[in-house]
Amino acid sequence: MKFEHIRHKPPRALTEDRPLIVACSPLRSNVNLSTIFRTAGCCGVKEIIATGNVKLINKIARDGAEHVKLTVKNSLPPVLKKLKADGFTLVGLEQTTNSTQLSEYAFPKKTALVIGSEREGLADACLALLDDVVEIPVWGMPYSYNVATSTSMAIYEYCRQYPDG
Amino acid sequence: MKFEHIRHKPPRALTEDRPLIVACSPLRSNVNLSTIFRTAGCCGVKEIIATGNVKLINKIARDGAEHVKLTVKNSLPPVLKKLKADGFTLVGLEQTTNSTQLSEYAFPKKTALVIGSEREGLADACLALLDDVVEIPVWGMPYSYNVATSTSMAIYEYCRQYPDG
Repeated sequence: MKFEHIRHKPPRALTEDRPLIVACSPLRSNVNLSTIFRTAGCCGVKEIIATGNVKLINKIARDGAEHVKLTVKNSLPPVLKKLKADGFTLVGLEQTTNSTQLSEYAFPKKTALVIGSEREGLADACLALLDDVVEIPVWGMPYSYNVATSTSMAIYEYCRQYPDG
Repeated sequence: MKFEHIRHKPPRALTEDRPLIVACSPLRSNVNLSTIFRTAGCCGVKEIIATGNVKLINKIARDGAEHVKLTVKNSLPPVLKKLKADGFTLVGLEQTTNSTQLSEYAFPKKTALVIGSEREGLADACLALLDDVVEIPVWGMPYSYNVATSTSMAIYEYCRQYPDG
């Protein structure tokens, strides 16, 4: 048979640790946060900074809960200022004025991907600190992706651009 | 301010309907199926073929539940044979021998994206009918994406290749 399952295929090697950091606004749903952890784990992301009432659901995050460092902070703007001072480019995921289509955006290697909350998206205090904003096009209803879905698409796009780390 | 929310940004126009069809093996979780519907709705996908104990959760699928046609079938292999006869290229999403990295695969416009179930993936009876298999690389634990996440990444990649339909 041409296509046979490879059950325990080894992961793709990275030549260096991924510098990508994901920084999340307070999420209403820890299911969403935990789903992001599972994706981040698969993609070799090392750290997620989360805010709000954070509780990882291990059944959903899987090994991502162990392999991705969780840093919990009270508020995102000071985190973003620190990341910027540390040389990260702050890239929001949102539909805004002056946003770039995700697939047309060349991610800087040291990117902090900044995620908004489910209902309000990114607060103005965060938007004001961003270097760039990427948006994922919508072609139909409901015109907005689930936050774990859009975050996963953005991480996928980053990894597509840096397949080897 | 450089970045301001665009709350009701109009969707991106398609020059023609998307021919992409998503065909799903029986999923254990209707949350996963409903999440796929939300993504499909956003991406202008017109039809999802589902098998198994299907019950859409409208709160999760959102308008995708109305705007994406749901076709429920007993079993996937006859569906795949019909799609192939109708000119669709059958593209599985799986890690197999001879699979192609998702980002390196040039999707035929008339693609039927074939999704496996959460635990077993695609059954051999389905694998045997496929034209191509795409896989999403993993770089870390747990070495496997949630099925709604991986399906959303694959739909994103298809749309990246056909941004205008």
